[in-house]
Amino acid sequence: MKAHIVLAHPERKSFNGRLADISKATLSANGFEVTVSDLYGMDFDPRESERHYNERSDDTVFHAQTEQRFNANNGTTPADVNAEVDKLLKADVLVVHFPLWWFGAPAILKGWMDRVFVYGKVYKSQMRYDTGICRGKKMIACITAGASADSCSFDGREGDTRLVIWPLLFPFRYIGFDVLEPVILHGIGGVASIEAHEDGMSDLDRYEANWKAALSDLEKRTVVPFNADSDFDENKRLRPASPSHSPFISHQRAKLW
Amino acid sequence: MKAHIVLAHPERKSFNGRLADISKATLSANGFEVTVSDLYGMDFDPRESERHYNERSDDTVFHAQTEQRFNANNGTTPADVNAEVDKLLKADVLVVHFPLWWFGAPAILKGWMDRVFVYGKVYKSQMRYDTGICRGKKMIACITAGASADSCSFDGREGDTRLVIWPLLFPFRYIGFDVLEPVILHGIGGVASIEAHEDGMSDLDRYEANWKAALSDLEKRTVVPFNADSDFDENKRLRPASPSHSPFISHQRAKLW
Repeated sequence: MKAHIVLAHPERKSFNGRLADISKATLSANGFEVTVSDLYGMDFDPRESERHYNERSDDTVFHAQTEQRFNANNGTTPADVNAEVDKLLKADVLVVHFPLWWFGAPAILKGWMDRVFVYGKVYKSQMRYDTGICRGKKMIACITAGASADSCSFDGREGDTRLVIWPLLFPFRYIGFDVLEPVILHGIGGVASIEAHEDGMSDLDRYEANWKAALSDLEKRTVVPFNADSDFDENKRLRPASPSHSPFISHQRAKLW
Repeated sequence: MKAHIVLAHPERKSFNGRLADISKATLSANGFEVTVSDLYGMDFDPRESERHYNERSDDTVFHAQTEQRFNANNGTTPADVNAEVDKLLKADVLVVHFPLWWFGAPAILKGWMDRVFVYGKVYKSQMRYDTGICRGKKMIACITAGASADSCSFDGREGDTRLVIWPLLFPFRYIGFDVLEPVILHGIGGVASIEAHEDGMSDLDRYEANWKAALSDLEKRTVVPFNADSDFDENKRLRPASPSHSPFISHQRAKLW
């Protein structure tokens, strides 16, 4: 079994880096062959653009999906992307580590998705969702947030982190993964403390132990429920009889503005 | 009155680029002094990292917020960021153009937020939300999506785009903007057609006309409702008597997994 770890933090000595080390050690100890993409360490360029393509379907106008598919079919996908696709597709388990910045992923991770989830290679209209290329594989995110658990709770001023990150988890479902319940660690760098409590464990020690435990028991971990392809009609709208398994897909339009 | 336009698309000749041109022409005609940040054209680096800082509060460990604040106080904020902060803070109206990629912003735009929303300069704990530095100013996003309006509707397979983009709009509220109802254009490059209908207008012509109309009537446009600071208690949780104005802040925990 293979596992791939993606780390998106500018400081290798950060708590995110430490968690990624724990992931590597834990998965290795559990028999996985482990690869790591430290995106900052690799100096990964997150900007999808013409600069990455030596060969072009149309060199007068750059259209990302068109060039991704053309180069995939042509065997000329950019080398840095190819290396990432290779690790992604070989992995039975994908672990993604990142800090929550501005209610989302650091740009370097978003751009990893923009570039590595290649149209024509990692997905296409007949290869997504239930027929996604990564079906049967597991993905888990380990996310740190500076704000407190209170302010990121369902009634918190920052919004429910579980909802905020849904648009980040959904692309992994889109390419076929079973997305496992993420581990979200709040108050990092702020409320969480490295001071030891009475039992000798600091907040960060406890977070590390929780993460290690989660990673050692992936088989039992809850899979985030998504709708099946068959829940939608020919226009890709939820059938009246289908339940919604997503907070973003509903039988009734939400009043937002 | 000043307006600032941020364009995040790798192809200047794209439909997004065309919409940004319309923004500039329309706002200029309406009396605004207009500046533009074409992020790809500027080769903006979206990766917040130590590489941008010549001066460091701590050169042994890079912590983004610590260095943002230190350099803001020290007058050594990176030059490319300073130029963006300047345009952001001078603008009475901010217009943001981008295509929806993987249920989010292109990395270059996310990174513009990661780097330009500088801790200690653009926000701090006593300067955010109701006390945000951009209070009284308006922000509007013009977003294109490849998927059809059906599949991006409230009951659509891709999830409700209005909900999907909420984590992208929220940072602008965080720094104080009145966030206006965004304009979301679906089916770009796919379903939407450049073929003229019977009235001589193509789908794209119609989209352009709608966008121009929205931009010419910002005073009347709906402001996305967010909770006031006073709606939250000292732990930053919604008071029992406060209504929720956000789909991400609730009186009851959602069942997600």
